[in-house]
Amino acid sequence: MQQAGPSPPSCSSTSECFPLSHHNTAECGSETSSGPEKHEPTFPSRMRSIVSFYICYLLCLGLGLACMVCVCLWNSQWRGGFAWDGSALQFNWHPVLMVTGLVVLYGNGAVLYRVPLTWGQNKLPWKLLHATVMFLALILSIVGLCAVFGFHNDKKIPNLYSLHSWIGITAVALFAMQWVVGLAGFLLPCSPISIRALLKPVHVWMGGSILWLSIAACISGINEKLFFVLTGTQAYVDLPSEALLGNSLGVLIVAFGLVVFMILSNHKWQRPDSSPEVLAYTPLLEEEN
Amino acid sequence: MQQAGPSPPSCSSTSECFPLSHHNTAECGSETSSGPEKHEPTFPSRMRSIVSFYICYLLCLGLGLACMVCVCLWNSQWRGGFAWDGSALQFNWHPVLMVTGLVVLYGNGAVLYRVPLTWGQNKLPWKLLHATVMFLALILSIVGLCAVFGFHNDKKIPNLYSLHSWIGITAVALFAMQWVVGLAGFLLPCSPISIRALLKPVHVWMGGSILWLSIAACISGINEKLFFVLTGTQAYVDLPSEALLGNSLGVLIVAFGLVVFMILSNHKWQRPDSSPEVLAYTPLLEEEN
Repeated sequence: MQQAGPSPPSCSSTSECFPLSHHNTAECGSETSSGPEKHEPTFPSRMRSIVSFYICYLLCLGLGLACMVCVCLWNSQWRGGFAWDGSALQFNWHPVLMVTGLVVLYGNGAVLYRVPLTWGQNKLPWKLLHATVMFLALILSIVGLCAVFGFHNDKKIPNLYSLHSWIGITAVALFAMQWVVGLAGFLLPCSPISIRALLKPVHVWMGGSILWLSIAACISGINEKLFFVLTGTQAYVDLPSEALLGNSLGVLIVAFGLVVFMILSNHKWQRPDSSPEVLAYTPLLEEEN
Repeated sequence: MQQAGPSPPSCSSTSECFPLSHHNTAECGSETSSGPEKHEPTFPSRMRSIVSFYICYLLCLGLGLACMVCVCLWNSQWRGGFAWDGSALQFNWHPVLMVTGLVVLYGNGAVLYRVPLTWGQNKLPWKLLHATVMFLALILSIVGLCAVFGFHNDKKIPNLYSLHSWIGITAVALFAMQWVVGLAGFLLPCSPISIRALLKPVHVWMGGSILWLSIAACISGINEKLFFVLTGTQAYVDLPSEALLGNSLGVLIVAFGLVVFMILSNHKWQRPDSSPEVLAYTPLLEEEN
């Protein structure tokens, strides 16, 4: 089913491949409406757009991997490793699972539809992959919450008192709601088209909002953790190596978020309208025709 | 010059007023391309869109005001008030000025072009107002940074060691760059249209990113401050009234950010393409015709 490599998608015309590219200036303002975007994109311009997408996508994958390596390294080498026994070693699963699930997997799931090699194909398998990646991200986030709740309960520390925890639990709750509503609205064949049309802008807005809420929760959590553990001769204020590693993790998470939002905000990289022959491959969703 | 109340903007056609409304489904996916958005919006649908915008805009103004009241109340009533003498009272200006400048004023400046009553008018005065509001927001943010640097220097505390400070200084530095590049690219008559067309998507993406970075900096800062000051019998973990106020401030900031992003992400509320007769009122920018 998949096309090989970063070749142009199999759209039947350039306007199918770049249906929104000539609206870019209108999206952003008014004065450049007579600019170059009014013209149909040429082949070199299409190739430039596809190549620049894959550069950003590789950056997104690389930064996501760097976030995961950094958070694992921090908790395995500086914080003593992992266990599931109510000790501080159980807590260490919390940052690893939240960064991996709520930021890296979530961000990669969000940009999935933007990959040009998916555009010429039936959308249904990509919808299922989007839902599966997001489900995995949600499960990791929930296990990450269980890790910190178990640690708190074992140490008789109240749960959910800090602003970090309020923001984090809000992000996970909205994520769970978004997943359930997304499944019911976009994957179940019984949901009417009018409901899907109403839901989509909300799904897109809430999807982006959950990501920046997750990043805010991660930044406040890393900051709080470094103030908690770096005291005495290894004070946070003196920026020992663990502080530099934790701060770098925060910077990597922010850089990852910036790249994800850059991909999501570029209208040239949005999946084009499906042509009738493409929609014909989606038997489950045939009422959408 | 201004139209009274929430009346429809003086566009010469519905497609001018809602130039992107029929692309909404394409923006979000593909299946609903044959849905109701393909039709020109009717008058009741235009009125509904305008009324729902003003409800969101009022919510945005109300939440912004609530954030400012909450941060002022916290620092005046719970933290002892304000001074500029290197003491903790000087520090108190920091949260007040950052929340007011980098979040509330910034967010209101970002949604300015979305107000429908500005659409039928020459864009130049609104550009100048956008630049002025953002300049004021930048000045408040820089004074807010001076407040904390002065306090740190007086107490011999190093500056810029925590992740909170790294994220906050990045947000302000990007904001300053964005303002200078925006002035040079969009307000100076010598900047060529091709540069404006290239700059606009970057300006929009970076504008949104600076807001969520600012919110992440505020959340981590409030969280850190509450852990610093709430100890002993008034520990953060016991959620005394100051903790509830600080956490509520964080929730209000997040709610404000969600409403701003909802306004920015709704394509029906974007300023339409200017018609030639509207652009004719922009003598400084006449090369844009």
